[in-house]
Amino acid sequence: MNTQSEMKSVLQKYIDGFNNKDSDAITSLFADSARIEDPVGSEPIEGKDNILAFYQKGVSMVEKLELAAPIRGSHGNSAAMAFIITMNMDGKPMQINAIDVMTFNDSGKIVDMKAYWGVEDIK
Amino acid sequence: MNTQSEMKSVLQKYIDGFNNKDSDAITSLFADSARIEDPVGSEPIEGKDNILAFYQKGVSMVEKLELAAPIRGSHGNSAAMAFIITMNMDGKPMQINAIDVMTFNDSGKIVDMKAYWGVEDIK
Repeated sequence: MNTQSEMKSVLQKYIDGFNNKDSDAITSLFADSARIEDPVGSEPIEGKDNILAFYQKGVSMVEKLELAAPIRGSHGNSAAMAFIITMNMDGKPMQINAIDVMTFNDSGKIVDMKAYWGVEDIK
Repeated sequence: MNTQSEMKSVLQKYIDGFNNKDSDAITSLFADSARIEDPVGSEPIEGKDNILAFYQKGVSMVEKLELAAPIRGSHGNSAAMAFIITMNMDGKPMQINAIDVMTFNDSGKIVDMKAYWGVEDIK
């Protein structure tokens, strides 16, 4: 069982990994069999190789991630955060309002990540 | 299929329902067979009667709900929001940082609600 502060620190490391453009550090937060649905409603990504490729592309496009509010925990193995993604699209800044929900295994690795953002959350 | 703005307006009505202390209005947003896990990790509540009882108790304890950031949509039938709950516990104010994730059926009713907040999110 993970403590709330352990899970929240992993979510903070996820933010930091993007801001350091370190896709290896982000990928290391996930279990080998983890599943990512980003955004929710799109085809999920599964397994470490696909996750690493996803975040390699991710850090190349993202300028910064900023929390919009403090990270929330739960009474179980999940934590969630509202944040703002700033991207650089060919010199034009673009922002996405997102909420990520992460579920953990007992070893403190993320087994499931769901990212809530829609087309209308892009500014 | 619900539009993003339809789902977001239901989440706003959920906030408004609490601020109007109107448990019937909140309950009307849910499908008859809806499932609520609030907080995530606790025993889920299912069915309209139990949901109404849950929100009758809820509105009696909650002073106000405020969004902490704009409501997020998805690319599917879900939307999410970070918000702050202010409660009045025997004259002592108490705040809970929460994130709710709502999933909808095709009639625009909530079928699943998950609330992410832990003991450490209470101030």
